[in-house]
Amino acid sequence: MVRENEIRKAEVAVEMPPPTDAGLVFIGRIRTPWTSRMETPRQGRSDGPLCRIEVFEPWVRALDSLAQFERIEILYWLHLSRRDLVMQSPANDGTSRGTFSLRSPARPNPIGTAIAHLVGIDGATVTVRGLDCLDDTPLLDLKPDRSLFRPIAPAQAGDFQVGDP
Amino acid sequence: MVRENEIRKAEVAVEMPPPTDAGLVFIGRIRTPWTSRMETPRQGRSDGPLCRIEVFEPWVRALDSLAQFERIEILYWLHLSRRDLVMQSPANDGTSRGTFSLRSPARPNPIGTAIAHLVGIDGATVTVRGLDCLDDTPLLDLKPDRSLFRPIAPAQAGDFQVGDP
Repeated sequence: MVRENEIRKAEVAVEMPPPTDAGLVFIGRIRTPWTSRMETPRQGRSDGPLCRIEVFEPWVRALDSLAQFERIEILYWLHLSRRDLVMQSPANDGTSRGTFSLRSPARPNPIGTAIAHLVGIDGATVTVRGLDCLDDTPLLDLKPDRSLFRPIAPAQAGDFQVGDP
Repeated sequence: MVRENEIRKAEVAVEMPPPTDAGLVFIGRIRTPWTSRMETPRQGRSDGPLCRIEVFEPWVRALDSLAQFERIEILYWLHLSRRDLVMQSPANDGTSRGTFSLRSPARPNPIGTAIAHLVGIDGATVTVRGLDCLDDTPLLDLKPDRSLFRPIAPAQAGDFQVGDP
């Protein structure tokens, strides 16, 4: 990985168990300027180009009240990634590191997470800056940035729990 | 939602499309002190109790080099959540807000994300503080906290792109 889907010297693949433990529904599509994995940013930048998230029905109504947040967390499905690598060689230099120590798109459940700046919401379209994914990437979820969100529901016992039980 | 799976006044459910666009594999299990949704924290705290993540084979090797990060991002499957709510009433007070404006576990793809403090890694077990999920929650992914990670792979064109294309 990750130029295309070749495997490199020093990388280790495993036999991938069937991914049937739970199922996802694609709730929208992300439009970005990048159509090749050879040009997408390694990391999004908050002054990056505008990207458009198109939310599908029946989920558009769930955008209600999202506009108040300056930053949102976006989850998406890295649909072109291989899922069977446990050791990867990002620099292709003969060394490798464990998949969980990297933010590479190649992972057993290829879910990307980004914190993006919310520019605006117009109907079913959410405009943001700060993404780093390919054009046409399937959308999985949108949520307020955790650092901006305070729970509305009343606190529960666990909220007050510190140290060891 | 979200006490158990009842629907409240002012909440709106939709007919859920079949979640068959992509499949997940559970790569581990998260052990926490909370066995009921009535007591789990609304939000994890960095001085919270120790939680244990047990990684399943064949993924244990992918933990290599993760120990160097002080904080890690954890993705998990909120296995008890309903997925069909577009408007929710967290305070059960007759008002409601869109699902994407909340960090409620009830969402079309119930994937939780947390930034946790990494306490240690021993074999297949990762110990952290800062989680807020139920005991026995299925694990989907581990990655370095984005603010601590610098890509190892060489930069690409998109990394230098600002403003509009």
